Amino acid sequence: MGSRPASDDLLFLGVDGGGTKCRAILVDQNNQVIGEGNGGPSNPYHGVARALESIVNATDNALRSAGLTAEDKSRVVAGLGLAGVNVPSLYTIVQQWDHPYFAQYLTTDLHIACIAAHNQDNGAVIVSGTGSCGFAHVGKKSLTLGAHGFPCGDVGSGAWMGLECVKAVLLDSDGLGPETELTDLVAEQLQARGIMIVERLNGAKSSDYAKLAPLVFAAAENGDAVALAIVNDGAKYLTDVARKLWTLNPPRMAMLGGVSRRIVEWMDQDIAEKMSEPLNQPEFGAVHFARAQFASESSKASAS
Amino acid sequence: MGSRPASDDLLFLGVDGGGTKCRAILVDQNNQVIGEGNGGPSNPYHGVARALESIVNATDNALRSAGLTAEDKSRVVAGLGLAGVNVPSLYTIVQQWDHPYFAQYLTTDLHIACIAAHNQDNGAVIVSGTGSCGFAHVGKKSLTLGAHGFPCGDVGSGAWMGLECVKAVLLDSDGLGPETELTDLVAEQLQARGIMIVERLNGAKSSDYAKLAPLVFAAAENGDAVALAIVNDGAKYLTDVARKLWTLNPPRMAMLGGVSRRIVEWMDQDIAEKMSEPLNQPEFGAVHFARAQFASESSKASAS
Repeated sequence: MGSRPASDDLLFLGVDGGGTKCRAILVDQNNQVIGEGNGGPSNPYHGVARALESIVNATDNALRSAGLTAEDKSRVVAGLGLAGVNVPSLYTIVQQWDHPYFAQYLTTDLHIACIAAHNQDNGAVIVSGTGSCGFAHVGKKSLTLGAHGFPCGDVGSGAWMGLECVKAVLLDSDGLGPETELTDLVAEQLQARGIMIVERLNGAKSSDYAKLAPLVFAAAENGDAVALAIVNDGAKYLTDVARKLWTLNPPRMAMLGGVSRRIVEWMDQDIAEKMSEPLNQPEFGAVHFARAQFASESSKASAS
Repeated sequence: MGSRPASDDLLFLGVDGGGTKCRAILVDQNNQVIGEGNGGPSNPYHGVARALESIVNATDNALRSAGLTAEDKSRVVAGLGLAGVNVPSLYTIVQQWDHPYFAQYLTTDLHIACIAAHNQDNGAVIVSGTGSCGFAHVGKKSLTLGAHGFPCGDVGSGAWMGLECVKAVLLDSDGLGPETELTDLVAEQLQARGIMIVERLNGAKSSDYAKLAPLVFAAAENGDAVALAIVNDGAKYLTDVARKLWTLNPPRMAMLGGVSRRIVEWMDQDIAEKMSEPLNQPEFGAVHFARAQFASESSKASAS
């Protein structure tokens, strides 16, 4: 920390940083939102320099929208919740960054999403969006499941469903797998069949594969056996994740991410029924985290 | 074609171009190899400019090793067998390239490998190396199966086995999949467990995943159920590919690629027993292809 501004001058920043964008909110001493800003991709797994640049851009945009300037970063206590910092070396790099804030507190995007979803530090979340993962934090215990990225993990996510869909369609087009409605649905969406699908997906990112997930749900709802197998495999994995997270006895569990509302309907009913609505957006969790960490450090400092 | 050199001055070049390197041989009128050269990655799917540059480099190296110069390319009838040109738009781009040769004949790496394996135009090959695919050419018919690339296809290849291995190990490390010996084998090879595996594989190419394939064979031979399932799934796919290729009645079928000798032992016995040894390296198939195409065009030209 630098020399401490008068505590009335302090501002709190919450940053939710993911693979495609990052979002920052700025709140005052009374927890009123006074500014918001967006930035670019901010998963350090895909590039540390770009991630840090995106975070600074989002911060500056939030300060500007509050009528402040980039120099006011020195008054900011920042909570960063970033994808990718579950990888220990990346956590260390971002933690040791020569940041421009008065103070910086770093954790994963999952942790801040969990805090936000439950308006408290204890709880569990399952994310099924472009990627997938599970997270629980109860007392001093926390557990992360999945978050392994595309194409090694992310079972039950949009990107995983899209990849499984393409695999099945290519087998069908070679006559080496069962026929599936997905073949025509993919042909319509990508305007491609067979080897041309490979051409269309040249350089495709996980978010491009995730755009095919709605086709899989549509075919599954229509009774297509191949699509049903994909959706059921994904839902079974997420059910397994939920059961394992419940062993930590979190007070609440919520599902997050663009695919969650559809996939939850295919999960085991006893698990689906116990899901709660998320209460807040992740960036509010980052503010909560920054406040709690800062208060804890301040009380330690005044006690010593 | 440019103005025709005296036919005694003509040389034939065979190029086998793949994702990691390209290899060229230069032969004289009597089919004697007079030069050889290597170049870099030459799959236009991963970059057309780089592929063409690699092909020219390999050509120049082959000319130099024959005591000739880069200017002698104008005496060369080139046969190019390239990965990636099964994608129609890439075929067109390379076909329309302002090439430096007297004449250029383009086909897939699979086609030249097939010609080389059988020393004739008719035959079938199954490749299981970093990627996987099947190809048969009989008379005017040809059939390509697979060749869909990583991670959408390539079942039964080294890269596919490596990816399935990592997926299984990550499930095991989360306690969400069956225990497997692969966990310890991967830990030893990558010096990583759990989320650290994801870190090690940051930016990994298909060839990096393929390095894990020997672990899967080792664990399968040791009776590990997870590894057995992977090897059997891959072998079943390649068996299906072989059965479909046999429907074209090729005179011979051969297996190629670094994984083929091990995976063939897990394929259906009736199929495995019918495999023949490949007779020549793919670049010789490219020469054969260039000679045949050139002779056919020349006879058409003299008949008209």
